[in-house]
Amino acid sequence: MREGYDHSYYFIAAFIDVHVRFHGERLKRKQRELAERATAKYDFSTTAGKVIECKAMVARAAKQPLSVERIRVSPPGPDEVRVKVVANALCHTDVYTLDGHDPEGLFPSILGHEAGCIVESVGCNVKSVQPGDHVIPCYTPQCCEASCIFCQSPKTNLCPKIRSTQGSGVMPDGTVRFHDMEGKPIYHFMGCSTMSEYTVLAEISCAKIPKEAPLEKMCLFGCGVSTGLGAVWNTCKVETNATVAVFGLGAVGLAVIQGAKMAGASKIIGVDINPKKYQPAKALGATDFVNPMELPEGKTVQQYIAGTLTQWGVDYSFDCTGNVAVMRAALECAHRGWGTSCVIGVAASGHEISTRPFQLVTGRVWKGTAFGGFKSRKDVPWLVKKHMDGELPIDHFITHTFVGVDQTNEAIHTLHSGNCLRAVVEY
Amino acid sequence: MREGYDHSYYFIAAFIDVHVRFHGERLKRKQRELAERATAKYDFSTTAGKVIECKAMVARAAKQPLSVERIRVSPPGPDEVRVKVVANALCHTDVYTLDGHDPEGLFPSILGHEAGCIVESVGCNVKSVQPGDHVIPCYTPQCCEASCIFCQSPKTNLCPKIRSTQGSGVMPDGTVRFHDMEGKPIYHFMGCSTMSEYTVLAEISCAKIPKEAPLEKMCLFGCGVSTGLGAVWNTCKVETNATVAVFGLGAVGLAVIQGAKMAGASKIIGVDINPKKYQPAKALGATDFVNPMELPEGKTVQQYIAGTLTQWGVDYSFDCTGNVAVMRAALECAHRGWGTSCVIGVAASGHEISTRPFQLVTGRVWKGTAFGGFKSRKDVPWLVKKHMDGELPIDHFITHTFVGVDQTNEAIHTLHSGNCLRAVVEY
Repeated sequence: MREGYDHSYYFIAAFIDVHVRFHGERLKRKQRELAERATAKYDFSTTAGKVIECKAMVARAAKQPLSVERIRVSPPGPDEVRVKVVANALCHTDVYTLDGHDPEGLFPSILGHEAGCIVESVGCNVKSVQPGDHVIPCYTPQCCEASCIFCQSPKTNLCPKIRSTQGSGVMPDGTVRFHDMEGKPIYHFMGCSTMSEYTVLAEISCAKIPKEAPLEKMCLFGCGVSTGLGAVWNTCKVETNATVAVFGLGAVGLAVIQGAKMAGASKIIGVDINPKKYQPAKALGATDFVNPMELPEGKTVQQYIAGTLTQWGVDYSFDCTGNVAVMRAALECAHRGWGTSCVIGVAASGHEISTRPFQLVTGRVWKGTAFGGFKSRKDVPWLVKKHMDGELPIDHFITHTFVGVDQTNEAIHTLHSGNCLRAVVEY
Repeated sequence: MREGYDHSYYFIAAFIDVHVRFHGERLKRKQRELAERATAKYDFSTTAGKVIECKAMVARAAKQPLSVERIRVSPPGPDEVRVKVVANALCHTDVYTLDGHDPEGLFPSILGHEAGCIVESVGCNVKSVQPGDHVIPCYTPQCCEASCIFCQSPKTNLCPKIRSTQGSGVMPDGTVRFHDMEGKPIYHFMGCSTMSEYTVLAEISCAKIPKEAPLEKMCLFGCGVSTGLGAVWNTCKVETNATVAVFGLGAVGLAVIQGAKMAGASKIIGVDINPKKYQPAKALGATDFVNPMELPEGKTVQQYIAGTLTQWGVDYSFDCTGNVAVMRAALECAHRGWGTSCVIGVAASGHEISTRPFQLVTGRVWKGTAFGGFKSRKDVPWLVKKHMDGELPIDHFITHTFVGVDQTNEAIHTLHSGNCLRAVVEY
């Protein structure tokens, strides 16, 4: 409180809007100052154009711990951006690839795709960011070109511009920017590779965000949290009073619950075999819970939701598990006539979803989402702004923090423990 | 042409609108006169309240021809309507049940559900129709009650009011109106049972249509044609310039093509293993054809459509076959990012659809339709009006006609031949 000013309730209440705005502005200014000081820590002028040697976690082979190594990161090519990674959050997709479940996973590679970064240098042609800018790497790029029917369509966010090279672990020109100390190439991953102190991104994969937003939190908008929120807001467009079921109460599932609550859903059913997940889900807005291991004799989870918890099923259901049997249950507990079920989880390779076509003929809709349907470079800054304005709290997702890229194996270990939502490694 | 009037081109062209309207009015008056004369043929006053003995085709057992029998039709109970069936079109669902593929099919029963009828008498409480009215029996009823969340929702047409009794082959009070000459009960089918000269319907299953509409054509709006058109207009809302693929070029598939053309689709791909189906499809608006038996070596039909015929797939695809492998192909040829695939065909019992969840995660939507999403009592009259106004020709669907209910076995035989779209039996 500012000294000499009357802060009594009745006095303040008379101009509360002005008062709050006054303090809001001051806090924002403070944030900006802190951010500028943070950026000022780095002098990138000495590294631009040169190879940077730094520490990284290299995935040498499937099913093995990541190897802490010094690597060399080449300068960015045309339309590329080299960034200093400030924080990286662990996502199950990284672990899935490391565990060898992705048949297209390449080794050696640098994993990681949910990060907050500062631009170190840019290649020629790059116009949208400059050294010192804060960016979130986005594995779904947004080229915004007039010829890109995907970027130009409001129906999708799946820009295919660099899809094939991204899937092959290389930059759009077909080469890599990572080499080990023996000069051998290391593959990129999902166009991000943020388990390294420095990485190189395509310019169209960089969502520029304000410097006052703390990167060690904003990294969450790079994948899971955005995906869950967007599945609700963009892919399914959940409306007020809707009923919702969420299968799997990890970070993505909790983001779905948070998004559904914000959208005005009246009933939000959380489904998980681990009852420890219910408390955080409840705090975010879940109203009912189902433990598939403790159902009444002879009832499936879909029968229990569409029949006991609701008469005809839920208006919207979300699979956040990646398990194809759960995806089926999610579809089949959707409301007769109009229920929509959204697949968010990534299934193990070769696994297929199935159901009787009667489920669709009687009005259920089966869809899926990637990055929650958010157009990455346009929408990630919007999510960040929403958070900075106090409308979208996300601190509750960060259950564990580590310091130093070399702590990534410990962070992965923690992610495997049942009570971790997001483990953030600050570099 | 009226004598004494100048019909030269230049003279007529000066007031062509007035001229066409003049003749249109006269033709409509003629239609009304014909319709009134047709109704006047029947004097229903002698049968009301009594059991009617009439001819019907009884399905005595699966996989056997229908048996021509005299049966007894009881008077309508409360909220019921007894109708004289004027014409009945054969639909594959009748044949499917007769062939024993429907494990819930009941015998003995009277099949048939695509008909045009005249109300003979009504039970107590019936307000929406009266003797002499023309109706289309609708296997999807529309109760319109304030408490029916399905009837009150714009998202669905699946009124469940009499679903359970309809599925059990009985009227809503749990009893039947059909008995054989030995007094043994005969089950109802799909709430219609129109392979009989007289049948009893729930009032909420009766779509009342104008008397000037010819029942021997309007019967088509009772199932297949409405379903195909509605899948395009209601379930998928195909927009102008959209690309469309239609799997299976029977009556439903052709109705999809017709609906898509009317909706302004720019490319309509017809898929069928029988090339004889291409000519009628082309006449209705199909622009391209695929014969799954004659694909380039190593290509699936989905790869051929999404890759060769189009770059990324079609905006909308429709399965009109009931084959689950075709349903999968239809989904997988839908456009990356936003393609929607609609299941229309009824699959054999126990068969399931499946795909990789990746197909959904990359933006494809899988849905289905029943009766094309049309709210039966509200929308069938709208379809009839559209036809009578000349905006919705349907004559091309009727490839075969028969006279006499006892010709139904021949009509079924004809339906099995490859070149039949709809065989209409006029009673």
